[in-house]
Amino acid sequence: MGTLRVPDVVPSPTQDSERLRKAFQGWGTDEKAIIWVLGHRTASQRRKIRDTYQQLYNESLIDRLQSELSGDFRKAVILWTLDPPERDANLAREALKSKRKGVDHLKVIVEMACAASPHHLMAVRQAYCSLYDCSLEEDITSNVTPPVRKLLVGLVSSYRYDREVVEEIVAKSEASKLRDAIERKQLDDDDLVWILSTRNVFQLRATFERYRETYGNPIDEHIKRCGTGNLESILRIVVWCIGSPEKHFAEVVRASIVGFGTDEDSLTRAIVTRAEIDMVKIKEEYFKVNKTTLDYAVIDDTSGDYKDFLITLLGEKM
Amino acid sequence: MGTLRVPDVVPSPTQDSERLRKAFQGWGTDEKAIIWVLGHRTASQRRKIRDTYQQLYNESLIDRLQSELSGDFRKAVILWTLDPPERDANLAREALKSKRKGVDHLKVIVEMACAASPHHLMAVRQAYCSLYDCSLEEDITSNVTPPVRKLLVGLVSSYRYDREVVEEIVAKSEASKLRDAIERKQLDDDDLVWILSTRNVFQLRATFERYRETYGNPIDEHIKRCGTGNLESILRIVVWCIGSPEKHFAEVVRASIVGFGTDEDSLTRAIVTRAEIDMVKIKEEYFKVNKTTLDYAVIDDTSGDYKDFLITLLGEKM
Repeated sequence: MGTLRVPDVVPSPTQDSERLRKAFQGWGTDEKAIIWVLGHRTASQRRKIRDTYQQLYNESLIDRLQSELSGDFRKAVILWTLDPPERDANLAREALKSKRKGVDHLKVIVEMACAASPHHLMAVRQAYCSLYDCSLEEDITSNVTPPVRKLLVGLVSSYRYDREVVEEIVAKSEASKLRDAIERKQLDDDDLVWILSTRNVFQLRATFERYRETYGNPIDEHIKRCGTGNLESILRIVVWCIGSPEKHFAEVVRASIVGFGTDEDSLTRAIVTRAEIDMVKIKEEYFKVNKTTLDYAVIDDTSGDYKDFLITLLGEKM
Repeated sequence: MGTLRVPDVVPSPTQDSERLRKAFQGWGTDEKAIIWVLGHRTASQRRKIRDTYQQLYNESLIDRLQSELSGDFRKAVILWTLDPPERDANLAREALKSKRKGVDHLKVIVEMACAASPHHLMAVRQAYCSLYDCSLEEDITSNVTPPVRKLLVGLVSSYRYDREVVEEIVAKSEASKLRDAIERKQLDDDDLVWILSTRNVFQLRATFERYRETYGNPIDEHIKRCGTGNLESILRIVVWCIGSPEKHFAEVVRASIVGFGTDEDSLTRAIVTRAEIDMVKIKEEYFKVNKTTLDYAVIDDTSGDYKDFLITLLGEKM
């Protein structure tokens, strides 16, 4: 369940576009109005607002937001206003073109392949091709080095079956294949990559459970013991995103605000991508682990319009 | 360009449904009427007829065709009446569950991955999941043995970029990677599988051309010299389907009617899947190679309603 709040009576896309246009005009921008409109609309309503705005004013709403807003607030509002597949194609491209070391920035690609619906992943791949003149797989191959490359290409190529079909016999035999690869410290093993990128998530959860029962520890613990390399890090994110996306995203939020400074990009990504999906569960998980509410943590660590926008998506009344 | 002929004034789906219903009723079935209606409608028109027929008579058109018709004629009409992605999911399933030896029956999977649009392939994967409680990749893995398995999983997982973007530098470097794998007779090499399943077809045609220029022979010739195993056969079909689908399908038709007896399944598949796409080019290619027309060959080798139906799809006036 998401935390997005939509009013009982939703204004028409024309009324919303007019309100946004008014917010942009005159001296200074009315950020509150922008939050008020866009922060309370579903993806398909936002899509209609974008289309209507374009027709009415012959101007792209995204471009206008780009020129009116700034900083983390601008980034969050624009990501939120894009179609979800287009948004994730953007995030994937940014991650792939980033000069950052390590693989932490690549987790967004794991999230779209393992913690979103198979249909969404297909739509992201289509959006990626439309936007960037090449496929997502091609860009992964040119920008990521092995062995992480092999895993990511496998994951984004998948179209998992999306209903709950679990076979105990598969869980047993594939838990043993995973164990075998982990014991050999061969984390880019063909079988392992195929299993994690192809099986439906319900099957994989049963396989992970069977793994824990048979080998005494959760699979992510055993992956951790293989080493601290990039492949180990990414594989543990794969296991979390499949096994329990809410735990993964609660951890993304926690990690983004812990210590000095805030990793706004990660915080924005977690909230913008999950507000319509499972933010209620993410908040519960966050509270369980951190003994404080996620809302409070966000309020404490952010400020201004950026804070107001995130809190709106988290379902708080402003 | 396809050979399907649609009348200038197309009857409404209701009129078509009524005509079909009439053809089914009374003593005997009016096959001519069935051919007359369905054999002159596009995929989206057939879709509407199916929906309308279901609403009007509370009966599935496919089920009714199943019970009214028989033999190769029935199979052809039903494949033609299904939505193209559903049709190909059916053909893929039948190929994967076949007990036949060799890999000839698997070429249908190569055709949908290499000679159809990326969008169509995605739709086939979705249809496959809806129809069979597992993904196409999972069924390939359980029913095909390595090394052909690896190639087929790679091919069906792809979502190729679909516009004409060709980089000469990529053509050069990847022709050399392909050559390297072929020289080592390692036809399931990671790079080779990745290149053939990921690059857009325009890029691949440039790469094949560069291969021919640099190494003196077409790549399929060199693949042939590696051996006569299953992987070699399938790889050559991959190269043909990417390089020149019309040549591939002209050959499918030729092989299906040459010698004693006819391979009706292959003949039906080639005509039903390509009548709306590139049958005009396939006919030209057929004539160039065989010095006789494809229509004449089909007329000569088939009979009855089956013949009439195929000839209708080939654009002949009955």
